Amino acid sequence: MHFWSEQHVDNNEVNHSVAEVHQLRNKIRSGEFCQQTSGLVSGYVQTNIVILPSALAGDFLKFCVKNPKPCPLIAVSEPGEFQLKDLGPDIDIRTDVPKYLTYTNGQLTEELNDLHSVWQDDFVTFVLGCSFSFEAALLEANLPIRHIDNCTNVPMFKTNIDTNAAGVFNGKTVVTMRPFSAADAIKAVQITSRYRSVHGAPIHLGDPSLIGIDDLSQPDFGDKVEVKKGEIPVFWACGVTPQLAIEQAKIPFCITHKPGYMLITDLLNAQLSLI
Amino acid sequence: MHFWSEQHVDNNEVNHSVAEVHQLRNKIRSGEFCQQTSGLVSGYVQTNIVILPSALAGDFLKFCVKNPKPCPLIAVSEPGEFQLKDLGPDIDIRTDVPKYLTYTNGQLTEELNDLHSVWQDDFVTFVLGCSFSFEAALLEANLPIRHIDNCTNVPMFKTNIDTNAAGVFNGKTVVTMRPFSAADAIKAVQITSRYRSVHGAPIHLGDPSLIGIDDLSQPDFGDKVEVKKGEIPVFWACGVTPQLAIEQAKIPFCITHKPGYMLITDLLNAQLSLI
Repeated sequence: MHFWSEQHVDNNEVNHSVAEVHQLRNKIRSGEFCQQTSGLVSGYVQTNIVILPSALAGDFLKFCVKNPKPCPLIAVSEPGEFQLKDLGPDIDIRTDVPKYLTYTNGQLTEELNDLHSVWQDDFVTFVLGCSFSFEAALLEANLPIRHIDNCTNVPMFKTNIDTNAAGVFNGKTVVTMRPFSAADAIKAVQITSRYRSVHGAPIHLGDPSLIGIDDLSQPDFGDKVEVKKGEIPVFWACGVTPQLAIEQAKIPFCITHKPGYMLITDLLNAQLSLI
Repeated sequence: MHFWSEQHVDNNEVNHSVAEVHQLRNKIRSGEFCQQTSGLVSGYVQTNIVILPSALAGDFLKFCVKNPKPCPLIAVSEPGEFQLKDLGPDIDIRTDVPKYLTYTNGQLTEELNDLHSVWQDDFVTFVLGCSFSFEAALLEANLPIRHIDNCTNVPMFKTNIDTNAAGVFNGKTVVTMRPFSAADAIKAVQITSRYRSVHGAPIHLGDPSLIGIDDLSQPDFGDKVEVKKGEIPVFWACGVTPQLAIEQAKIPFCITHKPGYMLITDLLNAQLSLI
């Protein structure tokens, strides 16, 4: 298993012990906990998951490398490897995500609580960074995040920004949107630039129509939030982008986490931060 | 003399030798050259200058410290000290700025080519960073700068943003404006964040009315530039801010450089860059 991370650890506050992480993961593993994971055991990295047959893994790896902002690789497994020890000594990817989605020929087919019934020995697991990590850093800098204040999901939009195609994988970029005052938008660029492995800096700010978004009150995924007078909508590349690419590729069978139901790792957000 | 600088030197390209800097400074000293210095001996730091009687220097130092974005201190002299050896072994602040402005009771009174007739033994020289340094870094990253493409002066605007008062010094913040595409605006935030000692990151972007600017086509200083469709105006704190504070303070006598007619130092822009 390959593991990408930055070596520097900064002083981000950690509110939870790794024992609490293991306890929560045990509950997820046993099926006792199968809810969204936003805001849980703050300080620890949560990730997007894509699981594909090894025949397609090379193409998908190339897709991630060519599209690092929507698909920031944190780790990739060997074929059939279901333990992800670098991310947590006990992690079993077949059981440790609260909810999984399966896709058959590009169509969403099933929602599962574990992968025992569908696991294949040629499955390769891709672990991709998630904006939960940089949101923690924004909150630590006292930047208000509207959808968190509202207790809703972040609004996500399909854009007209093409990804860089790799093999069978291509499609448009999906973005998340968070509104900020201008001063906070500038601060948000600075802070998220430090989190390259969890989408990094925004890819757009200001006029949504310039990236093909007609109506900010109609997100394609997640929940709408208000953009108040004097605020600027700020757009980050989103980990839902590979799910669009998977649908477009119509590949025979693959698995992702259910958006919002993430893999919780032992990594600290601070370990992902540059500088 | 105190000298603030970052230790790290990066790989910014330097196109000129320090001998060329000395040659140009000699021409300025002799009066042979008394033009604007924008774009000259690129790679080397050019600075704003404020010269005050020592009785006011404590207040002005505090004003700079309390307003680091418009007044980023690079160096300050001892009273009466006219050599600024840390900035260049031969620098004589009485002769090495192409044009000076004198202020009497806060009113602009004279334009001078040297200070021999007005120099006082209690004068303290403040050397403040200038956006020419970060513009060089933006250009190196292939970001187009409209007023440079137009061969005009950068547009400057008085805002409604109060500076932090210190002693007799206070007033509104002056900003420079550069229009960029959203993607380039994000890059400009990243790049200029590295140049804390030359105004650093922008202080505003987007709607100018939010900082008290009614009409972008009517700059208070400098020349207007077009903000094209799809572009965002980006605003940086400006070294003209202390000149407003000096006017407001109505101090008996002081001197500044003439805007655009800067002190050219031996320091490399790269020496000012963080990270």
